[in-house]
Amino acid sequence: MMDFRPIILVIGILLSALALGMIVPAIVDAFAGNPDWQVFAISSGVTLFIGGAMTLTSRSRGLRLSVRQAFVMTTFSWLFLTLFASIPFVFSELGLSFTDAFFEAMSGITTTGSTVITGLDTVPPGILLWRALLQWLGGIGIIVMAIAVFPMLRVGGMQLFRMESSDPSEKALPRAAQIASSIGLIYLILTFICAAAYWLAGMSGFDAVAHSMTTIATGGYSTTDGSLGNFDSWSIDLIATIGMIVGSLPFILYLKTLRGSYAALWQDSQVQWFMSIVCIVVLSVTAWLWLSSGLTPAQALRYASFNVVSIITGTGYATSDYSQWGSFAVPVFFFIMFIGGCAGSTTCGIKIFRFQVLYAAARTQLHHLLQPHGVFIPYYNRRPISDEVIVSVLSFFFVFGVCFALLAIGLGMLGLDYLTAISSAATAISNVGPALGPIVGPAGTFQPLPDAAKWLLSGGMLLGRLELFTVIILFSRSFWRG
Amino acid sequence: MMDFRPIILVIGILLSALALGMIVPAIVDAFAGNPDWQVFAISSGVTLFIGGAMTLTSRSRGLRLSVRQAFVMTTFSWLFLTLFASIPFVFSELGLSFTDAFFEAMSGITTTGSTVITGLDTVPPGILLWRALLQWLGGIGIIVMAIAVFPMLRVGGMQLFRMESSDPSEKALPRAAQIASSIGLIYLILTFICAAAYWLAGMSGFDAVAHSMTTIATGGYSTTDGSLGNFDSWSIDLIATIGMIVGSLPFILYLKTLRGSYAALWQDSQVQWFMSIVCIVVLSVTAWLWLSSGLTPAQALRYASFNVVSIITGTGYATSDYSQWGSFAVPVFFFIMFIGGCAGSTTCGIKIFRFQVLYAAARTQLHHLLQPHGVFIPYYNRRPISDEVIVSVLSFFFVFGVCFALLAIGLGMLGLDYLTAISSAATAISNVGPALGPIVGPAGTFQPLPDAAKWLLSGGMLLGRLELFTVIILFSRSFWRG
Repeated sequence: MMDFRPIILVIGILLSALALGMIVPAIVDAFAGNPDWQVFAISSGVTLFIGGAMTLTSRSRGLRLSVRQAFVMTTFSWLFLTLFASIPFVFSELGLSFTDAFFEAMSGITTTGSTVITGLDTVPPGILLWRALLQWLGGIGIIVMAIAVFPMLRVGGMQLFRMESSDPSEKALPRAAQIASSIGLIYLILTFICAAAYWLAGMSGFDAVAHSMTTIATGGYSTTDGSLGNFDSWSIDLIATIGMIVGSLPFILYLKTLRGSYAALWQDSQVQWFMSIVCIVVLSVTAWLWLSSGLTPAQALRYASFNVVSIITGTGYATSDYSQWGSFAVPVFFFIMFIGGCAGSTTCGIKIFRFQVLYAAARTQLHHLLQPHGVFIPYYNRRPISDEVIVSVLSFFFVFGVCFALLAIGLGMLGLDYLTAISSAATAISNVGPALGPIVGPAGTFQPLPDAAKWLLSGGMLLGRLELFTVIILFSRSFWRG
Repeated sequence: MMDFRPIILVIGILLSALALGMIVPAIVDAFAGNPDWQVFAISSGVTLFIGGAMTLTSRSRGLRLSVRQAFVMTTFSWLFLTLFASIPFVFSELGLSFTDAFFEAMSGITTTGSTVITGLDTVPPGILLWRALLQWLGGIGIIVMAIAVFPMLRVGGMQLFRMESSDPSEKALPRAAQIASSIGLIYLILTFICAAAYWLAGMSGFDAVAHSMTTIATGGYSTTDGSLGNFDSWSIDLIATIGMIVGSLPFILYLKTLRGSYAALWQDSQVQWFMSIVCIVVLSVTAWLWLSSGLTPAQALRYASFNVVSIITGTGYATSDYSQWGSFAVPVFFFIMFIGGCAGSTTCGIKIFRFQVLYAAARTQLHHLLQPHGVFIPYYNRRPISDEVIVSVLSFFFVFGVCFALLAIGLGMLGLDYLTAISSAATAISNVGPALGPIVGPAGTFQPLPDAAKWLLSGGMLLGRLELFTVIILFSRSFWRG
């Protein structure tokens, strides 16, 4: 039998932190004279009580988790956080159904950004801030996971990012905790800078803070139905574009840069690939927009860069309905949904390093076809990739494809039309936000979908966020047999 | 420099065979009193002249091909055959443009079955027979390739099917030639049986022969616009369903069965998987059709089994427009397009054995996550799979995804709507035939697409048919550097 105490302990601590987070919207709503402050205060109390109880009743000496325990902890902490985070949505004046509230909370914590709320402009500030805060917390949460937990779980090739200190030695935990808190600080500072920039560009203080949180977290929740398009400002679009890219790079490299390795960012092959892919797609879409519409080259570049970066990074802001950009744009936006940013960032999707590993493997494969007796070794970041990592990454790709197909078929079974089903499945599993088509496209919301579809999509978001295997493994018999 | 003589020799022989094939429709048209017989006769003469010249001028002692030469030979023989096979389409009374003729011939030789011809019912018998014959020749061609050439080229994991005799020893070639001719005979006999069954079920002799050729070849060309739906007969649907399944199993197993291993078919894990997948999909679609439409369970089973088998095997016959079967059916038909049948059959697509290898690798991956120090070995057909094969199969999967995405984006760029672009790309690269949607769905044709789209799709069909790498490798610099 597994010892659940350390798992309950971790979840308890996380819930207590969430409870503290709920105080922020409570204060804001109280200042704004909105009665919802009581909902947040009571939700906070309930969450703190349960979280505290979990923490206190399961104190264990030290925090040594087995791999098996770490799997359970990861999935269940995300589930519990979502559950408690959805409370305010149910009891606030929005009065969402439990399904909608859970969907909205899951979409927030996984930094997806799909929403079921229409009329955001009339929603009280507490709820808007809560949505932004969920994405912000989910963003730093996943960065810490990518640095401290996923390499240990070795899901989908994440073992590539094992630090020298990842061995289960005595020094490992303090070292990881130190790195995590440094990165947390960098995350906070980047959010501040982004907020200040938005404010200088003309946003209100509230909008600036809320959007900065969802920009750096590549989440995509906005405070208005029109998303960033509502502000219609060149400088705001530019700040958001840069902010989303900042959120898509490996945060550990910012730490390295600050510690004196000034070239860390530019020398990282994942960053190089990511920037090249972004440039190629942006330039193609710009050219298409310029030639096929009445836009000037500068306007085309503005709309293309903002919306491409927003979708490729899985943020999901919109400034215009790219579903309407014609026959070239729709498949492009569909496929770039899957790409994502770099590992160790706030983005989701397949992620750049997996494409690099796949490319290196396919290239080696071609050489091997020509010279069956030659020895060819694939490289990542100037280091050889082990066969284990290659198989791990390639299995991820395969399982990703299967999950996507099953999700899309499931949605089809619930009555969604082809484009809605396929693109919703893609947007959920890649944590992007908007899908394609008239219902769930950038101009719509997920509100009209049947409840069962919302549950399926919530499951898809969780799967995608936790690198698939972390969740799937819990359904295997051999996992529980021990 | 590569020695092109053996390549030219092989292509010359194949062209001469094609020229002999052209005599068949010439005779039929002559009997039917149709002036097109002259077109076929002249095409045959021209092809025979060029093929003969190629054969005679490049006689080389023995037929030892290097791996490099085999790659060039494979792609170029398919290209040359397509080129000459398209001549009758241009000069017959149909008067197709060269683009349309090339598309139709490529779709035939690759056993795809997408067509640009409308009004098949009024087309002269010679052309109809020529289309059927192309698919039939393409079918046996690909079986021989899968047995004799692809394992040597080791493309996409086909090295799994290397026979003990595949070593380049002195005995290898005669042995392979003997197996190829035995399998050719089996192919011929199966076609006869299928034709006889169609005829007994009420088809005219001509229709029976034409359809039997495209059934066993899982090609899908029909003699009428309504495809097999026109005959509206339970027994014909059943014969076609069985025939398509027969064409989707590894032909080498038929040979083994005839040689006394009566359990060869049932013990093969690829066959088991294929039949299980077909059953699961057929039963789900039957249940859906029964519950969502006014059909009786028997009718639902008839339409579901016929159309699912037709698409999963990449045949592409239609008895009804499954695009109209509602929201569940469309994504199902979209995804099963990719599956295909068994390796060593006439089908295309990803093929069952690759899913087995992927599944085995992903399963091993899960076990490995739980027990990092355990040793887990993936198996295929009770034999361990080498890492080389796994990487090879997984790279295939990845390259397949990339080619599909690029093709779909390219089609989108040419102005095709989302559903048409995505499903045409899928149908071409998997050699299925019909796509989805009002234009290129089972009720439409590829005629209305722009010329550039037809060329792109022709390229996609060739790529898919020759297991991608065979074609792609010709574009790599290191291939030609030697």
